[in-house]
Amino acid sequence: MPSKAVDYAHSQHDRFLEELFALLRVPSISTLPEHAGDVRHAAEILVAELKRIGMENVRLIQTAGHPLVYADWLHADEKPTCLCYGHYDVQPVEPVEEWHTPPFEPTIRDGNVYARGAVDDKGQMYMHVKALESLLQAHGRLPLNIRVILEGEEEVGGEAIARFVAEHPEELTADFALISDTEMFAPELPTLCVGLRGMIYTEIEARGAKTDLHSGMYGGAAPNPFVALAQIIAQLKDAGGRILIPGFYDKVVKPSSDELRAWESLPFDEEQYRKSEVGSSVLTGEAGYGVLERTWARPTLDVHGMPGGFIGAGAKTVIPAKAVAKISMRLVPDMTPKETFALYKQYVESLRPKGIELDVRLIHSGDPIVIGTNNPYVKAAQNALHQVWGKDTVFIRSGGSIPIVGDFERNLHIPSVMMGFGLPDDNLHAPNEKFHIANFYRGIDSLIVFLEEVGK
Amino acid sequence: MPSKAVDYAHSQHDRFLEELFALLRVPSISTLPEHAGDVRHAAEILVAELKRIGMENVRLIQTAGHPLVYADWLHADEKPTCLCYGHYDVQPVEPVEEWHTPPFEPTIRDGNVYARGAVDDKGQMYMHVKALESLLQAHGRLPLNIRVILEGEEEVGGEAIARFVAEHPEELTADFALISDTEMFAPELPTLCVGLRGMIYTEIEARGAKTDLHSGMYGGAAPNPFVALAQIIAQLKDAGGRILIPGFYDKVVKPSSDELRAWESLPFDEEQYRKSEVGSSVLTGEAGYGVLERTWARPTLDVHGMPGGFIGAGAKTVIPAKAVAKISMRLVPDMTPKETFALYKQYVESLRPKGIELDVRLIHSGDPIVIGTNNPYVKAAQNALHQVWGKDTVFIRSGGSIPIVGDFERNLHIPSVMMGFGLPDDNLHAPNEKFHIANFYRGIDSLIVFLEEVGK
Repeated sequence: MPSKAVDYAHSQHDRFLEELFALLRVPSISTLPEHAGDVRHAAEILVAELKRIGMENVRLIQTAGHPLVYADWLHADEKPTCLCYGHYDVQPVEPVEEWHTPPFEPTIRDGNVYARGAVDDKGQMYMHVKALESLLQAHGRLPLNIRVILEGEEEVGGEAIARFVAEHPEELTADFALISDTEMFAPELPTLCVGLRGMIYTEIEARGAKTDLHSGMYGGAAPNPFVALAQIIAQLKDAGGRILIPGFYDKVVKPSSDELRAWESLPFDEEQYRKSEVGSSVLTGEAGYGVLERTWARPTLDVHGMPGGFIGAGAKTVIPAKAVAKISMRLVPDMTPKETFALYKQYVESLRPKGIELDVRLIHSGDPIVIGTNNPYVKAAQNALHQVWGKDTVFIRSGGSIPIVGDFERNLHIPSVMMGFGLPDDNLHAPNEKFHIANFYRGIDSLIVFLEEVGK
Repeated sequence: MPSKAVDYAHSQHDRFLEELFALLRVPSISTLPEHAGDVRHAAEILVAELKRIGMENVRLIQTAGHPLVYADWLHADEKPTCLCYGHYDVQPVEPVEEWHTPPFEPTIRDGNVYARGAVDDKGQMYMHVKALESLLQAHGRLPLNIRVILEGEEEVGGEAIARFVAEHPEELTADFALISDTEMFAPELPTLCVGLRGMIYTEIEARGAKTDLHSGMYGGAAPNPFVALAQIIAQLKDAGGRILIPGFYDKVVKPSSDELRAWESLPFDEEQYRKSEVGSSVLTGEAGYGVLERTWARPTLDVHGMPGGFIGAGAKTVIPAKAVAKISMRLVPDMTPKETFALYKQYVESLRPKGIELDVRLIHSGDPIVIGTNNPYVKAAQNALHQVWGKDTVFIRSGGSIPIVGDFERNLHIPSVMMGFGLPDDNLHAPNEKFHIANFYRGIDSLIVFLEEVGK
């Protein structure tokens, strides 16, 4: 892999990391309205940097929500066009007391940078920017055409980019997308993700009395919205982890026997996974399926929080007028968000307890995706990874959702190459999120070599 | 009821109300550590006022929690001693956005004062202080011996006063206690409360993974503590409102047929109660029991809040490492908190879902109480109320808990006269708590006449 661009990147490691730290210090939490200014600030940093490295037509695109960042370089006639996608928004940091160092003060420990967004997705998104800088510095041009589109709403459903892709597909014309927002199956094991679960994120609001009531005075007469939600949730999933919504599994396509066999050969130690990643006494989920199949290729249902009532320390004897359950489902091919939400809503409403009114809301959704391993860009990625890591690529799926992959497929009719460098213990969406610094550097190398391969 | 003391009280109405307002402005929320200074401030106001009106041995008693206020006047030889109890702490104010005027800016509307603590219990407790002032001003002495004990932890379980009563019963020697922390059955209907439900307030903490996890990556493998709690709660109570804890109802004593008949003759309009007080589409609770029996003489179970996970606006796809359910049960004679908690804990632990660890905690508790209507102090109260209100007293029970009544019975061996002047729509523990000002004034009259009756 002799590459002037890789040499350049190696010469700039310290600066690249410092720049990433500056970006990580911006608390761009997209779901919290009070951080809207920070989300915009992160976008502005990226606009300035894309201009500085020599990208063209760099601009902030206003949306109804957080802004998009666009840039391009389109002077490689006859060469393919790559659409580089990433997101600069991050998840909330609760429970903040469980962070060993503050989430927005990036800190290096044991070769990792700890910060909210370190791996999801600021660190991985910034690898793209630095790969493009290295190519432009080394050659004065890029080996293929590039468009960059970055969003600030990935963690809240990506509504603005979805609308932009649907309404302005001509501004994002490309042959394939490149996304680094996934993880490697294991350290040192180059990985391409060729399948994603979809999702629907919902809220059930249960309303009983017209106002909060004292449980001494009214206990025994007033409906309790939390009890109602508990009764509903208990009927969504059985003790064995099987989801009880009628018709829920009807469209589920089982992975091919080739794919299942390949997964069985992956270096996966279930007991190690249970102990070091999950840390629970046993793993849960549907009987009869392995962990990889359960988390990659089976639909699931989780409850994320139940706002309402009294949640402070101590005792308040209130029967709350209302309570909410935040519930999401992960979907697999060929389930669709629309059909699944309809089945769910109908079933939940059929479970409505006495005295309770229900409002079942869809907050956001994303399609499940499977991409073929024979795709030429996937092949080029496999080739590049072999050069940088010296090993065969493993093809995995991810249990998470990247709704934009569905948007690109539906509106731009292009596949996505999901080349990510996160590690399984990076604490995504949790306290003490981290990114392995060596992976940040080798990720940049991999992206450079991949883009050079495609441009050959 | 010719009474110089009542005449004096009538001449001071405006000042009495102004003083109450000053007390209501102090946000003495006992459950919130950041309000500890306010709780103490309320106690200090009462110490100063009890000294000013001529009570003796007035002092603040330090405790491990919020302070007690003590005062006495013991110069009525051969007369009984009355122990006046009240509490100066208040409930939290959430959801604060539902208050029409700020909870700690007392506001008069339609003859009511709106403020947190207006009726529970600052307003009612302050009637005692003003009754004592009126008697001392009118006669230069009291018609019987009085001890006053006020606490600042009633809303968080009353641990400090319970300990004081247990450890220093000789400092509170009395013939009966007088408590104004209950309500009238209907406006203009003088009411004595002769029964209280007890309670146990508990938390179930469910722990799954060792840290918060991403539901995309781990959904299908990691246990979900909210789903676990929902499964448990759904097995605590059936759809018909019957509690499923084995042995839970074994000690329940049914009210006498006389008592049940008297309740049936009370002016109670179930449909009006449903619409104007509860406001739900139907009332809930055990089939086969009337609303009064369900809320006064049947045990119940409610969920008050489920802290944990993500409760902000929007979407966070977290499988929380832990979640908590705040659950209380109301108890009736002859249930005991200790036995009931043991049955509950054993049953909850038997329901433990796969992969989940449970911690079942008792936060606080209170005994259920029934006091005989033939008690001489209850008879004197009935007599006094007839003089002031011109009507026969109705004897009710309350669904709420006043654990101190049990402490007085157990440690001081005295009954409690529960003479309260709240109204059913006073929004106890809820937004827009209020106290009818006419009841504040006639409550003072009633207390004066009662104490004069007992001292005759």
